[in-house]
Amino acid sequence: MSEFKNATIVKAANVYYGGQVTSRTVHLENGTKVTLGIMLPGVYEFGTDGPEIMEILSGDLKVLLPGAEVWQEIKGAETFHVPGNSKFALEVFGVTDYICSYPEL
Amino acid sequence: MSEFKNATIVKAANVYYGGQVTSRTVHLENGTKVTLGIMLPGVYEFGTDGPEIMEILSGDLKVLLPGAEVWQEIKGAETFHVPGNSKFALEVFGVTDYICSYPEL
Repeated sequence: MSEFKNATIVKAANVYYGGQVTSRTVHLENGTKVTLGIMLPGVYEFGTDGPEIMEILSGDLKVLLPGAEVWQEIKGAETFHVPGNSKFALEVFGVTDYICSYPEL
Repeated sequence: MSEFKNATIVKAANVYYGGQVTSRTVHLENGTKVTLGIMLPGVYEFGTDGPEIMEILSGDLKVLLPGAEVWQEIKGAETFHVPGNSKFALEVFGVTDYICSYPEL
């Protein structure tokens, strides 16, 4: 599925790290929320409230998940899960296009 | 209206200028299309097919419209119209959040 249908899209972008990471919030038909975002090269840390599912559509990055000692390399399309109430780090090497889902919100 | 409702959003981003300009395509309930985008600082030139309406939600930039000799300064929210089959130039100084509408598509 390359599109979300019957969605509500918040016009204003979410802007982090001076615009190096930006996203749009989309409310889906089933009541859940996703954000569609772009990360440009840089090093970032994000915190979660509830669990998050990060679907990388395209990109070149490494992620350090909470509790992990090894950075996971991602080139291209891949998905990783982040526990709730945690922090994770990202090192982004190339333009990275992602969808973040919040299954419990 | 701060949201688009009953819309279809294409998952994959549109990426220009190495990611300095990115957008998402949204198909609205009325059959028209918009793109919601972010421009980071830089100098850009874009071409149009049909006419475009650029609604700047927030930003700091200058625009040179086709046929104009003077750059128009934009700080904050403002809208400008670009004729079809033309080129326009932008100089962006701060993170710029925009909605581009294509009224004839």
